[in-house]
Parts: sequence; C-alpha cells; structure tokens
Amino acid sequence: MSLSLGAKMAARAAAVEEVLAAHLPPEGGVPVPLTAAMRYAVLGGGKRLRPFLVGAAAEAAGGGGTGGVILQAACAVELIHAYSLVHDDLPCMDASPLRRGKPSVHVAFGEAMALLAGDALLPLAFQVLARAGEGDVVRRAVAELAWAAGWQGLVGGQSRDLLAEGCEVNRAEVEAIQRGKTGAIWVAAARIGGLLGGADEGRLADLTAYARRFGILFQLTDDILDLTGDSSVLGKPAKADAAKNKATFPALLGLDGARRLA
Amino acid sequence: MSLSLGAKMAARAAAVEEVLAAHLPPEGGVPVPLTAAMRYAVLGGGKRLRPFLVGAAAEAAGGGGTGGVILQAACAVELIHAYSLVHDDLPCMDASPLRRGKPSVHVAFGEAMALLAGDALLPLAFQVLARAGEGDVVRRAVAELAWAAGWQGLVGGQSRDLLAEGCEVNRAEVEAIQRGKTGAIWVAAARIGGLLGGADEGRLADLTAYARRFGILFQLTDDILDLTGDSSVLGKPAKADAAKNKATFPALLGLDGARRLA
Repeated sequence: MSLSLGAKMAARAAAVEEVLAAHLPPEGGVPVPLTAAMRYAVLGGGKRLRPFLVGAAAEAAGGGGTGGVILQAACAVELIHAYSLVHDDLPCMDASPLRRGKPSVHVAFGEAMALLAGDALLPLAFQVLARAGEGDVVRRAVAELAWAAGWQGLVGGQSRDLLAEGCEVNRAEVEAIQRGKTGAIWVAAARIGGLLGGADEGRLADLTAYARRFGILFQLTDDILDLTGDSSVLGKPAKADAAKNKATFPALLGLDGARRLA
Repeated sequence: MSLSLGAKMAARAAAVEEVLAAHLPPEGGVPVPLTAAMRYAVLGGGKRLRPFLVGAAAEAAGGGGTGGVILQAACAVELIHAYSLVHDDLPCMDASPLRRGKPSVHVAFGEAMALLAGDALLPLAFQVLARAGEGDVVRRAVAELAWAAGWQGLVGGQSRDLLAEGCEVNRAEVEAIQRGKTGAIWVAAARIGGLLGGADEGRLADLTAYARRFGILFQLTDDILDLTGDSSVLGKPAKADAAKNKATFPALLGLDGARRLA
C-alpha cells in the first residue's frame, strides 16, 4: 500500500529533522550561545520541502529516496536554506523580526550571534554533504551546492533583491532575482538528488528544467501569500514585500496577473 | 639552484593571486556591487601565507607544491580566510574600519554588501576546492575545510572571542579562542596539502601537530604586533585588541610573557 503524498512528506520531514538534530551541535554545546542559535535556526520549524525534492529527484533517477547518502545530502541542502533565512532577516538585510512564528535569530540571540550562526550553518552544510558518502559523485554534489549558494545563485539573487528595493524593475530582473534568491537552491536540490540517484546527463537536464519551473511556481505562491495571507498563519510578517517595495511578481504583474502566471 | 624561501613565497603568492582572480567574478560582473566587493575583499592584499602552507604540506608529503590541484586547494583556503576577515570587521563584530591598509569592505561597500560578499566567498571556497580535481581525496579535503570553517573551528573561535571581550579569562580559554579563530584554518591548510600530496595517516598527524604549533606562534606574533606596531605598517588599527579588552596572549601573560612563549 503506497502512502499518500502528504503522509510521505510528513515521514520524510521527520527523518530530516532527526538527521539535522544529529549534525547540529549538542544542546548546551560550547560555545553557548552560538550552538543554541544554530539549533534555534534549524530545528522545530520549516516544511523541509527542499530535502523532499532531493529525495524525489533521487527516486526519479532510479535511486532510493530515503537511503543514507541521499538523506544526508537532503539535510545539507536544508542547512543552506536555514542559514540563508538567518542572514536575510538581519537588520542590515530585510530586518525581519519574525520567522516561522518565532522571533528571528538576531532578535532572540543578538546580531553578532545570528551572523555567526549563519556563518557556521553554511560550512556545516558542506561538511554534512562531503561526509554523506564516499566517491566522486559526492564531490560533484558539493560543487553543485556551492554554485547554488554563491554569487551566481542565492547570494547573487539576494543582492539583486536588495538593490531593486524601491526601484522600477522589469520582468527579466524579477526573474533573475527569483532564479538566484530562491530558484538556485531548488535546482541544486533536484540535481544533487539526481546525481546521487544515478541520473545520466539527460535526466539531470530534465530535473533541472523541472526544478526551475517548480521554483517559479513556489515563489509566485509565496509572493501571493505575502500579500493575501495573515502573519499568524505565515509565521512571518505579511505584506512585508510590498512595504519594502520589493521587486516581486505581484508588484510587476499585479495580484491577478501573478495568480494567472501561477 | 634552489630559490630562497622569500623568493619562493613571492612566486607562490603571485600564482595564488592569479588563480584567485580567475575564480572571482569578472570585473564589472553582475550583480554589481556584490562582485566588486568580493574582488576588493580578496585581491591586492594579503600575504597568502595559508596557501603557502598548503603547498609546503603537500611537498612535505611528497606531492608537488605548485601543481594544479594543490594550487586550487590553496586558493580555496585563502578564500575562507578572506571571507572571515570581511565578517570579522563588520559593525556587529569587531567594527574595524581598516584592513590591509584600505577601508574595510563594509566601509567601502556598505554593511549589506559586505555581509553578502562574505556569504558568497564562503561557498566559492568550496566550489573551487570541489572542482580542484577528481576523486575521493578531494571530497575528504572538502570535509576538512568545512570542519575548520565551522562551529568547532573558525566560527566557534570568533564566538568565544566576542564573548570573552572585557571578561577575565584563563589561559585555557585564550588557547581555545586561538585554536578556533586562527588555528583551525592553519590546521586545515596543512591537512589539505598533506591529503592532496599523498600523506598517510601518520604524516597527516605530524602535519596537524606542526600546524597547531605554527598557528600559536603566528597568533602570538600578531598579538604582539598589535600592541607594539604602527597602524600604517600593520594596515589595520593598532592596539585594537587592548582597546576592546580582547582575550589575547599578551593580555593574559603580559607583553614580555607573550614574547617568551613565542
């Protein structure tokens, strides 16, 4: 009997939670409060969607979705996501006080510890991935994750996003922001899962194309919810994008236009 | 005819400079100013001592000191060092306005771009290392670098350093700060060079012990120069440690005590 998608996602998320907890510093680990800030940033929240995509891509490539190496790699991708949220929320960035329904890391632990917690989660992701298993395919997965996290991916998108605040931007720029800021990690999740699942170049290209489209859909949904949702449900301040004049799809196309694109 | 150590170090530093420039985003690369901040943080300064240790350790292990993979790995280690300086200088950290005789990155490019430039240099280091060559030894080198950059290494030391400011700390804590904040990257440099140079476990242990001692000596020298040197020669504010009541060897042992230990 096959599980429903929802039950499967919940089971995977629970497995991811357990592995993340095992890789994070122990509770009360020295130096406190760095280790506490790291645990706070990662555990007890998050839908673990990116790790799910790693597993799904591995399955699509013919590999196991929950096997040791793939589960470890899935957690590495989630650690990159977690670090990026901590730094995005910092006062010099989006200055967001709320994340996943709790005070942001810098509100709870101070700005310096939030900066350092992010700085520690980023290499932890590469450590978890590099130790996920042996062989050259793991090395290739590291290169994928590094690319996605860097200036041509996540950080490039975040820079474009900050620079575009309050500016008139065209659709190409909104897409470039999305492709970097959120899209690159979706692509990395799919490609890493594919690689570890044994995908050939053709299948990797298919997975990449799928992840790109999925990333755009996800961002559209997130942008629409930012405009129409409630802080208590979102777990982060609603309408924050509009307040900051962020270059989003709804800002460009209108709410209805964004809904149609989605 | 063998080169003098000074000439050899200068030749290596020039090679490192060239490879670093090739891996950084191109001049005028998009998004400006992120790419400009990354280049500013890395190029045109720095003695490239950590890359030299990577090459020297590879030679000690019997491998070539300037070969492709080792030179690439040496640059990866330097990128970690460069990122750490950018984040250390930020207002919420050491708030240092001067680095290598120039305005710090956040002074030149603003706080957000300095944060993001560091966030981009960190994964770039792993990208450069993961693409340095093929094979499982490169994967192991990635794990070493990630460990050194993380909460048990660099970031752990930086956290301890911040937390110790203005506090009475004992020698064990000063050593723990040094071991993390500066020592871990020296150890990683030696171990990565050793691994890629073909060292066995015994030789790796020797290299680790050597790098630990070297790291302490280097830190002692840096601390002593902070107290006795001049800003114009150091390229960064002198006596900054004492002004912040940093937990350093001279603060613990006195200047003469630190000199004796060195």
